[in-house]
Amino acid sequence: MVNSQTTVGNYLTRRLEQAGVKHIFGVPGDYVLGFFEDLQKSPLQVIGNCNELNAGYAADAYARINGVGAVCVTYGVGGLSLVNAAMGAYAERVPVIIISGSPRTGEYPERHGLHHTTGDLTVQRDIFAKATVKSAILLDPKQAPAQIDETIAACLRSKRPVYIELPVDMVNAPCPEPGPFSPDLALPCDPAAREKAVSETLALLANAKQALILVGVEGYRLGFCKELEEFITHSGLPFAASISGKSVIPEKHPQFLGVYYGILGHEAARTAIEAADLALCLGTLETDDVNVGGPVAQRMDPKKTVVAASDCVRVNDRVFEKVSLADFVTALRSRMPRKEPDLAKIPHPSLSREKYSAVAGQKITLARFARRMDGFITSANLIVADTGNAILFSADLYLPKDIEYIAQSFYASIGFSVPAALGVKLAAPARRPVVFVGDGAFQLTGQELSTIIRQKLNPIIFLLNSDGYSVERAMHDGPFNDIQMWKYSKLPEVFGGGWGAEVKTEDALEQALSLATARPDSLAFIELHIDRRDFAAGLKKLVGK
Amino acid sequence: MVNSQTTVGNYLTRRLEQAGVKHIFGVPGDYVLGFFEDLQKSPLQVIGNCNELNAGYAADAYARINGVGAVCVTYGVGGLSLVNAAMGAYAERVPVIIISGSPRTGEYPERHGLHHTTGDLTVQRDIFAKATVKSAILLDPKQAPAQIDETIAACLRSKRPVYIELPVDMVNAPCPEPGPFSPDLALPCDPAAREKAVSETLALLANAKQALILVGVEGYRLGFCKELEEFITHSGLPFAASISGKSVIPEKHPQFLGVYYGILGHEAARTAIEAADLALCLGTLETDDVNVGGPVAQRMDPKKTVVAASDCVRVNDRVFEKVSLADFVTALRSRMPRKEPDLAKIPHPSLSREKYSAVAGQKITLARFARRMDGFITSANLIVADTGNAILFSADLYLPKDIEYIAQSFYASIGFSVPAALGVKLAAPARRPVVFVGDGAFQLTGQELSTIIRQKLNPIIFLLNSDGYSVERAMHDGPFNDIQMWKYSKLPEVFGGGWGAEVKTEDALEQALSLATARPDSLAFIELHIDRRDFAAGLKKLVGK
Repeated sequence: MVNSQTTVGNYLTRRLEQAGVKHIFGVPGDYVLGFFEDLQKSPLQVIGNCNELNAGYAADAYARINGVGAVCVTYGVGGLSLVNAAMGAYAERVPVIIISGSPRTGEYPERHGLHHTTGDLTVQRDIFAKATVKSAILLDPKQAPAQIDETIAACLRSKRPVYIELPVDMVNAPCPEPGPFSPDLALPCDPAAREKAVSETLALLANAKQALILVGVEGYRLGFCKELEEFITHSGLPFAASISGKSVIPEKHPQFLGVYYGILGHEAARTAIEAADLALCLGTLETDDVNVGGPVAQRMDPKKTVVAASDCVRVNDRVFEKVSLADFVTALRSRMPRKEPDLAKIPHPSLSREKYSAVAGQKITLARFARRMDGFITSANLIVADTGNAILFSADLYLPKDIEYIAQSFYASIGFSVPAALGVKLAAPARRPVVFVGDGAFQLTGQELSTIIRQKLNPIIFLLNSDGYSVERAMHDGPFNDIQMWKYSKLPEVFGGGWGAEVKTEDALEQALSLATARPDSLAFIELHIDRRDFAAGLKKLVGK
Repeated sequence: MVNSQTTVGNYLTRRLEQAGVKHIFGVPGDYVLGFFEDLQKSPLQVIGNCNELNAGYAADAYARINGVGAVCVTYGVGGLSLVNAAMGAYAERVPVIIISGSPRTGEYPERHGLHHTTGDLTVQRDIFAKATVKSAILLDPKQAPAQIDETIAACLRSKRPVYIELPVDMVNAPCPEPGPFSPDLALPCDPAAREKAVSETLALLANAKQALILVGVEGYRLGFCKELEEFITHSGLPFAASISGKSVIPEKHPQFLGVYYGILGHEAARTAIEAADLALCLGTLETDDVNVGGPVAQRMDPKKTVVAASDCVRVNDRVFEKVSLADFVTALRSRMPRKEPDLAKIPHPSLSREKYSAVAGQKITLARFARRMDGFITSANLIVADTGNAILFSADLYLPKDIEYIAQSFYASIGFSVPAALGVKLAAPARRPVVFVGDGAFQLTGQELSTIIRQKLNPIIFLLNSDGYSVERAMHDGPFNDIQMWKYSKLPEVFGGGWGAEVKTEDALEQALSLATARPDSLAFIELHIDRRDFAAGLKKLVGK
């Protein structure tokens, strides 16, 4: 019996499509041109980026919304330029499929004198093995289909990046046509462990006087937001969000305390977390720590925490493996009585908001700009915040229901947001991204604005121009925190589309916002001049400390 | 007896200075701010870059001219963003000292929940171990001085990159004052092996009817150019230069055949190399292959080659370890009689040059632009060529004596040249860099123009705008080779200095060249519009193949 045949390149392309990839980011190069041609002929849309790091960030952000993302680059000079994007996706549990072209199979494992290499062809894969849950080099067309299937399944199952290396001569090598793709994505499950974790948690809850919930991002990545919200409502407990878990549960929820981010976040949330005798951490990113503010957060006492992650639960200092977040929360809920919240004791952050109205001639400040955004942002938007002053600023926004919020809040690469805006818009075409980025961060990756323009996308990008690295200034100032002042608002003209505005006062901001609203299909690039030491509320507390 | 004390941070700073580093490139971040302060207070000049990859490229180019370079970044997000620059320096044998700040010593080796990390603090060092000859994590102030000394010595000795990881709490840890720095930089030497290699080479030369010399870049890196030139003159043999060895020996030398770069280089050089019955390869980059044109060069028959590298010599298929290039060439010369060259048989490339005079209204072509450059470039310049059409174009330039030529010709990262222009100008302040870069390459790293402007440097940058990736178009065309058209010439205005011009015709080029000459202290950014398929001479041959 002869199976119908295809090529390894087309097999991979088809599997990407079946996995849910609709757009693939990347930069071509000689070791990967043949596969780019396969991609171009497929239903996938190829998005060319300015450089590989930007492509990696775009694929990461795309995956956060779409459920899976992909990036394709050439060997060595290409692959090794996106290591940081891969590591960020690995640290933040984002499912990205990284594909690198590579030299001919006959050159493996060592071939000196080959351009874009050091001669040792195992190096790149060894590096990516540190930033992915599974990696494969496709050296044999007989094994390639199984390797592709297993690698992509590992990505979807673990929600973490994987790496596939595709030698040039493998692209057109014959292999069987792919059938339907239905990998087993179930996480390992131990019902006895789950019951024990649930019982112990219930016992702790029964004894706790000041229990609360801390929501992380994993519930979002697992498509479990609605159930989480129902659990919170059912429990009657107050809850805070970690910064990466911001808006996983609508901030309008009456039990919402605010964003917990150590001293960088909302004061009410911090006070409540520190006073709690039990914190139920649902989908926060680390199983043996609670990722909520890096060096400036109190490390939570393990005796006062239960942490449910995607694949295990820790109750105090005991870890129960093979218990998923979803199973744990579902089982916990079924054994908890419904309780009404004591709303008098839960100070909702919306209550403390000052009302904003623009004052002509008044200089922009971050604090007042945050209040202006409260009304401007709607659930038709999608928020992207860069690392630094921008993410701390965004922690202070009070976001409407059903909005999505994207930031690399834990691994924290500056420069993530502009490529991310490209990724999220392609993943969620009906939404208009609103991006907050500092000038320092922008200079790392700002050329990706050009790809946003090339793809005719319509984000509103607020460049918070404080003339340097704000977080670094707050922590340890010196001339090394200064950067070159650009005429940022002219960049849309240089890159060939959208429009830019330079804004210094509140009335000028109103004009720019009106223009952004009046041109819903166009990139709006709005540069806000703020003082060099105008820090977001959280950062001000850090400086005061 | 009490030694006078300093701190580990100041010890490292002092050693950098003693090793010959005068400028250090980098981007600050929270794990490295304390050390940036030490750097700032030292005699070293801190050059802030737009991002870490650019900083790495700048340090690499700086090291090519200065003899050693250094780059300093923060942990994770910083370090992992420059992996490709490190690997390029490693592949091309460039001595760069890479310094990364890192978390507190108490966090090692594993600390989950720490920002900018995946929790495993061995990962970054393990990755850099693959791109460096020596790496160290400074975890103990008692051992730190010796670790620093050994690591920097390894860099200077091997002319390859090294990696130093500096935890935040180590910066101010006390350690002894550094004394004088006089590491043993001698390469291992085996006189018996050298004599054997020389004797066998002399025997081969005696039997060869068509022997020639191929010059690589290592003689330049080792400070051995003058002696190499004298050897060539003494031998009377014709010689070609590999692309990375371009201008190591003045191109005016009467025995010069041209640049050998497979079919991408000069035809006379290729014909001669392929017809030779003995090629004496001096300082070409690989010991077991001859790096001269990647996939498009004939692999040289080992039976017809002698390859002398920095630390070993291969005669046919026998390798003699512990024989340095310098020792080998010196010994060989002492045993060879002086011979007059047979100039009638050596067609000097300058003879075939067409004379250029600008034609008003005539569109710019690469071929004619190369001829225009023959007269424009003087030995007060320094050439930087980016990978792609630009480097192939530069192979076709006929360069004056005593000029320096910098390109990442073997590892071949596109985007190297703009950060490199920053690096070489700081390393050689008396020279004015002339940079050739394609539009595709420029989009990867072009924001570093801003640092060139910030530092008030005066390169002349020719942007060869072919509206896309030219080499890829030549090899395998598709829409993935298209990029967004920028208004490049407006970028100096955006970045705040220098001037830009958009040039389409030969008379407009003359005006721009005059302006560049009239403003010797200013950045000149000249965008040349060329046809989408206007390929450099070498690339045309590739397409025709």
